[in-house]
Amino acid sequence: MESPAYQLFNLGSNDQLAHEVAETLNVPLSNIIMNQFADGEIYERIEHTVRGRDVYVIQGISNPVNDNFMRLMIFIDAARRASANSVNVVIPYFGYARSDRKARSREPISARMVADMLESQGVKRVITMDLHASQVQGFFDIPLDHLSALPVLGHYFYEYDLLGDDLVVVAPDHSGAAEARKFATLLHADWAMIDRRLDNLVPDKPYQVIGQVKGRRAIIIDDIIDTGKSIQLASEALKAAGATEIYAVASHPVLSDNAVARLEKSPVDHIIVSNTIEGDHIVGLDKLEQVSVANLFAQAIKRINAFESIEDVLRSPDNKEAIL
Amino acid sequence: MESPAYQLFNLGSNDQLAHEVAETLNVPLSNIIMNQFADGEIYERIEHTVRGRDVYVIQGISNPVNDNFMRLMIFIDAARRASANSVNVVIPYFGYARSDRKARSREPISARMVADMLESQGVKRVITMDLHASQVQGFFDIPLDHLSALPVLGHYFYEYDLLGDDLVVVAPDHSGAAEARKFATLLHADWAMIDRRLDNLVPDKPYQVIGQVKGRRAIIIDDIIDTGKSIQLASEALKAAGATEIYAVASHPVLSDNAVARLEKSPVDHIIVSNTIEGDHIVGLDKLEQVSVANLFAQAIKRINAFESIEDVLRSPDNKEAIL
Amino acid sequence: MESPAYQLFNLGSNDQLAHEVAETLNVPLSNIIMNQFADGEIYERIEHTVRGRDVYVIQGISNPVNDNFMRLMIFIDAARRASANSVNVVIPYFGYARSDRKARSREPISARMVADMLESQGVKRVITMDLHASQVQGFFDIPLDHLSALPVLGHYFYEYDLLGDDLVVVAPDHSGAAEARKFATLLHADWAMIDRRLDNLVPDKPYQVIGQVKGRRAIIIDDIIDTGKSIQLASEALKAAGATEIYAVASHPVLSDNAVARLEKSPVDHIIVSNTIEGDHIVGLDKLEQVSVANLFAQAIKRINAFESIEDVLRSPDNKEAIL
Amino acid sequence: MESPAYQLFNLGSNDQLAHEVAETLNVPLSNIIMNQFADGEIYERIEHTVRGRDVYVIQGISNPVNDNFMRLMIFIDAARRASANSVNVVIPYFGYARSDRKARSREPISARMVADMLESQGVKRVITMDLHASQVQGFFDIPLDHLSALPVLGHYFYEYDLLGDDLVVVAPDHSGAAEARKFATLLHADWAMIDRRLDNLVPDKPYQVIGQVKGRRAIIIDDIIDTGKSIQLASEALKAAGATEIYAVASHPVLSDNAVARLEKSPVDHIIVSNTIEGDHIVGLDKLEQVSVANLFAQAIKRINAFESIEDVLRSPDNKEAIL
Amino acid sequence: MESPAYQLFNLGSNDQLAHEVAETLNVPLSNIIMNQFADGEIYERIEHTVRGRDVYVIQGISNPVNDNFMRLMIFIDAARRASANSVNVVIPYFGYARSDRKARSREPISARMVADMLESQGVKRVITMDLHASQVQGFFDIPLDHLSALPVLGHYFYEYDLLGDDLVVVAPDHSGAAEARKFATLLHADWAMIDRRLDNLVPDKPYQVIGQVKGRRAIIIDDIIDTGKSIQLASEALKAAGATEIYAVASHPVLSDNAVARLEKSPVDHIIVSNTIEGDHIVGLDKLEQVSVANLFAQAIKRINAFESIEDVLRSPDNKEAIL
Amino acid sequence: MESPAYQLFNLGSNDQLAHEVAETLNVPLSNIIMNQFADGEIYERIEHTVRGRDVYVIQGISNPVNDNFMRLMIFIDAARRASANSVNVVIPYFGYARSDRKARSREPISARMVADMLESQGVKRVITMDLHASQVQGFFDIPLDHLSALPVLGHYFYEYDLLGDDLVVVAPDHSGAAEARKFATLLHADWAMIDRRLDNLVPDKPYQVIGQVKGRRAIIIDDIIDTGKSIQLASEALKAAGATEIYAVASHPVLSDNAVARLEKSPVDHIIVSNTIEGDHIVGLDKLEQVSVANLFAQAIKRINAFESIEDVLRSPDNKEAIL
Repeated sequence: MESPAYQLFNLGSNDQLAHEVAETLNVPLSNIIMNQFADGEIYERIEHTVRGRDVYVIQGISNPVNDNFMRLMIFIDAARRASANSVNVVIPYFGYARSDRKARSREPISARMVADMLESQGVKRVITMDLHASQVQGFFDIPLDHLSALPVLGHYFYEYDLLGDDLVVVAPDHSGAAEARKFATLLHADWAMIDRRLDNLVPDKPYQVIGQVKGRRAIIIDDIIDTGKSIQLASEALKAAGATEIYAVASHPVLSDNAVARLEKSPVDHIIVSNTIEGDHIVGLDKLEQVSVANLFAQAIKRINAFESIEDVLRSPDNKEAIL
Repeated sequence: MESPAYQLFNLGSNDQLAHEVAETLNVPLSNIIMNQFADGEIYERIEHTVRGRDVYVIQGISNPVNDNFMRLMIFIDAARRASANSVNVVIPYFGYARSDRKARSREPISARMVADMLESQGVKRVITMDLHASQVQGFFDIPLDHLSALPVLGHYFYEYDLLGDDLVVVAPDHSGAAEARKFATLLHADWAMIDRRLDNLVPDKPYQVIGQVKGRRAIIIDDIIDTGKSIQLASEALKAAGATEIYAVASHPVLSDNAVARLEKSPVDHIIVSNTIEGDHIVGLDKLEQVSVANLFAQAIKRINAFESIEDVLRSPDNKEAIL
Repeated sequence: MESPAYQLFNLGSNDQLAHEVAETLNVPLSNIIMNQFADGEIYERIEHTVRGRDVYVIQGISNPVNDNFMRLMIFIDAARRASANSVNVVIPYFGYARSDRKARSREPISARMVADMLESQGVKRVITMDLHASQVQGFFDIPLDHLSALPVLGHYFYEYDLLGDDLVVVAPDHSGAAEARKFATLLHADWAMIDRRLDNLVPDKPYQVIGQVKGRRAIIIDDIIDTGKSIQLASEALKAAGATEIYAVASHPVLSDNAVARLEKSPVDHIIVSNTIEGDHIVGLDKLEQVSVANLFAQAIKRINAFESIEDVLRSPDNKEAIL
Repeated sequence: MESPAYQLFNLGSNDQLAHEVAETLNVPLSNIIMNQFADGEIYERIEHTVRGRDVYVIQGISNPVNDNFMRLMIFIDAARRASANSVNVVIPYFGYARSDRKARSREPISARMVADMLESQGVKRVITMDLHASQVQGFFDIPLDHLSALPVLGHYFYEYDLLGDDLVVVAPDHSGAAEARKFATLLHADWAMIDRRLDNLVPDKPYQVIGQVKGRRAIIIDDIIDTGKSIQLASEALKAAGATEIYAVASHPVLSDNAVARLEKSPVDHIIVSNTIEGDHIVGLDKLEQVSVANLFAQAIKRINAFESIEDVLRSPDNKEAIL
Repeated sequence: MESPAYQLFNLGSNDQLAHEVAETLNVPLSNIIMNQFADGEIYERIEHTVRGRDVYVIQGISNPVNDNFMRLMIFIDAARRASANSVNVVIPYFGYARSDRKARSREPISARMVADMLESQGVKRVITMDLHASQVQGFFDIPLDHLSALPVLGHYFYEYDLLGDDLVVVAPDHSGAAEARKFATLLHADWAMIDRRLDNLVPDKPYQVIGQVKGRRAIIIDDIIDTGKSIQLASEALKAAGATEIYAVASHPVLSDNAVARLEKSPVDHIIVSNTIEGDHIVGLDKLEQVSVANLFAQAIKRINAFESIEDVLRSPDNKEAIL
Repeated sequence: MESPAYQLFNLGSNDQLAHEVAETLNVPLSNIIMNQFADGEIYERIEHTVRGRDVYVIQGISNPVNDNFMRLMIFIDAARRASANSVNVVIPYFGYARSDRKARSREPISARMVADMLESQGVKRVITMDLHASQVQGFFDIPLDHLSALPVLGHYFYEYDLLGDDLVVVAPDHSGAAEARKFATLLHADWAMIDRRLDNLVPDKPYQVIGQVKGRRAIIIDDIIDTGKSIQLASEALKAAGATEIYAVASHPVLSDNAVARLEKSPVDHIIVSNTIEGDHIVGLDKLEQVSVANLFAQAIKRINAFESIEDVLRSPDNKEAIL
């Protein structure tokens, strides 16, 4: 028998993105019954047969992190028992990825644990985006397709004619230097870096800027904006150092705690993030703009099913026809 | 080298029970740093070395179910990586245990999935209490010590001189018949059963009682009181059938949704439950009384460490010296 | 290359059923050489290539239980090494399923062990029928298609016009109440139950009947008829309680020990079982009739291969076109 | 806590050997309840606690092979679930060991399958004797202590002063040449070999002897005597070639089929085997003598528990103090 | 989607054989970047997509054994992570196969370890040739297709009209008797054997010949020619025993150490080996001739992909059309 | 039985370090026979019993990387089969650690593969030093004790009174910034960084220095010195920028290719490395000095065996009593 076409499921961590992916693929989201009982337990039931199908399920591990993760695990169990040919998980935002090493004795490495759980339930493939450290790829033994929002984020600056000689990409700390350099190359711009060496000793002292930012437009680049503190302090340092306009760019808008208020007050002028995470927690931050990565995920799914390479999907913003 | 003594950890799902167990064992609870970040991710760090130790961690999978479960998983990862000799998990209430079979096509078997996750992280042993179906034991390949609260719950009736010929134990539905018979034997009482056959067809119709309850004191026995609906309808049926006084007895006081209000209004006179679950959700239900199973867990841990059988721990209420 | 069609094998635990399934599917049984040497060891050799094929093998774990199970295991090893694409095992009767929990300390859970062995040899799917406890499904991590003989057994009563208001379905013990209710609903009949509470104390005392059976035709329903003792005592109790005619209905006719003689002498008038088990041990019991479940297994195999849902196969007897 | 002493179990495949081992060790056999139900299923229950104990279980995989093997598997499951510290299986005769390779396409390798099953249930160590091919050791990833009966069998010839220049050890076929050479060295004797090249073509033709046997006492050496055909034909060939007296020596007296009658009629004068297999099937063959390997197994168990090397146990017959 | 065709890779242990296989199959070798850094680490990168492809990789575990093996392992990792549908490894020469049992205490079984490593990385199938012991097949749980060079080596004697009544096949030691008999049958020739019993005691003493070789052409048959010592001593023994012409035939020309010089000086007249191993170490030995087994491997790959049996590929030299 | 003391093995990748560790621990290195045959295969045999022992084996994965790794794997297999209680591997230099992520499509993640192989053979614990990325810890599921040479390397500057205000620690590229900051803190020094942004575009252009180095003594810090190119270019840049004296400090002196010549010619004045790698490749570089980390490994082994925390072992140079 020839195998039937693949099926797409959405578990609700990011409805908007899932619908966009489905529309781009012109594949309907399959039906699933999903409840959280009053006692906190999650129940799911796939409505129509997945027998022999390749199943793609879209579910980020974003807040509420543990509920969203268990929703995913329970779905995988149901799909495997229902004889799906393969279960492929699309995780736009991979929570716990920052717990990727023991910084101190007796800490967990939660990202590896999450990877183990997914593998132990027979997941065939993970598709995710901008892991905090690319070494997390090695936490999996199954194929992992690692997409990047950078081309889409960079494309924003092309689209709105924001390039120029006065542009400088800034790493908010030393560990972000590699990413900053990569983004600077994408935008044919200079790069600089914030030195946070003294943050532990003199917490209130504004960070020091390494590199030329005076009189230039600065783009702070990070993978995640979580509490917003890092962006706040970096932007203050850039302001103090004479930057004329400040952008903050990131793949994942976690925006936890009172990040919105903090960013509102900070000297950042524009915040450009992707839509790997959506939600009410973002509403009300006027200086924030979201660009969609739905097409990237859609292209990845489409090519995987056509047994084509997805190397192109990871290309620069010049390759606009293909993916942007 | 001789191996050091075991260590006891509490992850906070039920502080009161954990402290009681620790006191009974005269073993202090070891220190652990535990945070839930604003973005929902959990962080843990074991404060002092567990190298070569047998570690016992007490954590129920009660509401918030997924957070509590992930707390447990992350602890296991940290303890294993920190070279604990063994990680033994004490789960007073095993959430998701009711998802123990596919009642319909394309459902998960979440209890098995939870078991798989625990095993995949190298847990050596599970100690738990009154699983919804005893077959869930077979979801594990590692040793599982299955305790029962029945002796402690039965002991309540001995202690307060509530035995007598007019006592009848009632199963709230046909699937509870085995448990009811067992408890009736414990109390030297008769047993009866509620027939819920028509519940799907005529929802509002009071259940029918099979057996003699008229003029007798009835004890409804169940493993879990969740929404309280089952107890409410059973007690109404018993009232209608002439029961003079109604007890409800259960191991696990889940009491989700508006269970408290529902039970308050119901004809049940007394509710006797164990303390496998504690919390604010129980407060305010005056007719409810909790009896402690801390000693059972403490005895189990103690004997396991002394390489002694725990068969006694599962004994009848007559064996008061040993465990009650 | 397109994958070739599936192949069907019979290992001899139930030749008749296997041939019926093959005929219904219009797929020949593939050849296999199978010997049991004088020293008791089993030898098998698959005669023609299974390379890349989906293999279905029909073998119940019925008496001689261990020989039949090892025949199955050895076949799986041979098929996997011979590069079968998948090995799917059809187990009409799943022996050891009653060993599904530790009722006492230091017992095995043999059903889980059998499941583990099958999984460890790379079985892709199990198709079985009426497990003693439906939780045994959770002993597997691979897909398990759980069929039921109830529709076929119920269909018997439709076919011979045996329905009517005087019909009452009887559970032979409290643990059978759920099954009895389900079967009663199928036949639009009442239900009752045998109370075996005193069996351990007063072995010879006839069981007590809970519910109305006087002047009615009673159908005792069970999943397995093993030694026949349970049916014997239940039928005596029903007779004593005034039942006019007594049927015994069960999925699996194990009929071990001197079950035939015991049932012969008992007040049961008709015994209706499926043909999941066949053999000489059944011959000579005139009041027994077997109805075939071959079509259920054939339909399941056919739909699995066509990537169709088998939910229909589990339907009620009304759905005659589809499966009966 | 210091770990308690080890425990010894006997599952009944060879009661006599098990009791001899226990006596030699001065360790009682622990109690176990073991039934085979009328339907063929095996039930076991370990009577007293094994918590934290190192458990040694003696059970050969001899006829009835599959029943004996399943008895062993079920025991392992029970012991592991009962929290035994380790399960060590002593398998005097390892059935299915001859199925150790695919001689033809689509055959199983049953010996590997048996090894996999044992490992999948968490067995810690296997102690066995004279595997048909020593490569079967590599079917296990767990430690396997491979004992040999050769020293004990050779010791017989020392004990009864049967050595001498006229002694020649004979391999019954080319694949036994290595074993024959080893045994010849042990007895300071010559060796010869039977050429069975024509057996497939001219079945009734007596085999041809390669080497000098005329006027000499010949010892046919084999690992297993199964149907006895090989010994029969070899002894006839030796008789025809002028051997004066013929011994047959083997580790495992399987003696299946009508081996006893066949050997009775054959020109073999004496048969010396070990007691890895006992039973009624051996009774009545007067020319057969059994020498006990109980001491070898006892020594192995004792030294393993004392963390001592068992290399000595495998020594030549000169080392009589140690093991013979 | 229909799955794309398979892909063929060569990792360089035997370029000539790989190219021959590719040409015979008319399938190009896919591109791979492969470096060994100055620090000894190997780097590989597959150049074009293998997504969804069945990948066949040809790499013998010949000298440098460990480098060649790691090249294979790293390729497997890359191919699996790149979403290959399956990775099938073609190992013309399986190094470490002679480490297949513990001959003494505390030795490794390296062949099993190699098998475990391959399986642990998700290899789907192994295709190899003439394992030192056929039991090594059982070291794998995945399908292993075990080819033999014997038909091709035997064909050499047919092709050059070298058959005749004076031909005798000789096993260089007792453990080679089975192989010698098989080859003798192939060539309709007699067989004989070298007795190496005294080699440990009197190292310089020429071996003794068992069987008739005087005045005959002798073919020494072995699976591997490693240091050449065995062939040297055997040929000297045959010369001394009156053999007129001496051939040495083997599957695998390891030829380590100063084998070439040793064989050059030995009385062997012709050496016929397959090309499972190629290299400079063979050059300069004029009496050696290599026959190609490329067609055997090509046929195996072709039929595996067409879901056909490869039983024919293992046939005798008579079946010339099919494979020679 | 009480378990015997642990045993220490050296597989020869770094004899000097192994002997130093053994001396520090006052535990002799146990005997092992180890050969590499002429055909490249490795043979090992452990000479004396390891039954029940905790085994520690010291073997770096340094050049020849693959041979050294296979030596380790084969040892593990032998020790496990010889019933060692646990196998703990001490890997001073973890080769392949730089292959820790897919930088491009279709690359392997060799470090994970190495981790998988070690785990698949049952290793209990890994002790290693200064992994290229600390995320590699997460490639293991078993405990990994991650030591650092930084305290010992820093101690060198304390010991020779090289501290001072004119000291500046320099990261040779942006990814080394974190390490540089950490080392600067250790030495109470400033830090700077080399910007290698243009290296791909203008290869011969000297790198640019970010930070103040003019008139100061600069310490380039890296984890590995491999080909020495990075140090060469960094030191040229520092020279050009006015540094007065230049140190290069690293944990692992790989020094492959013509690193020695390159470093000899470079403006670096002193090179301080640890002795995780030893060998002839280092000889002749006069400006290089090795400080020993033997005590760190010895302390780790000692504390692990005493069930003590090794957190102290990772301390700063101030804690001289404990470890330096």
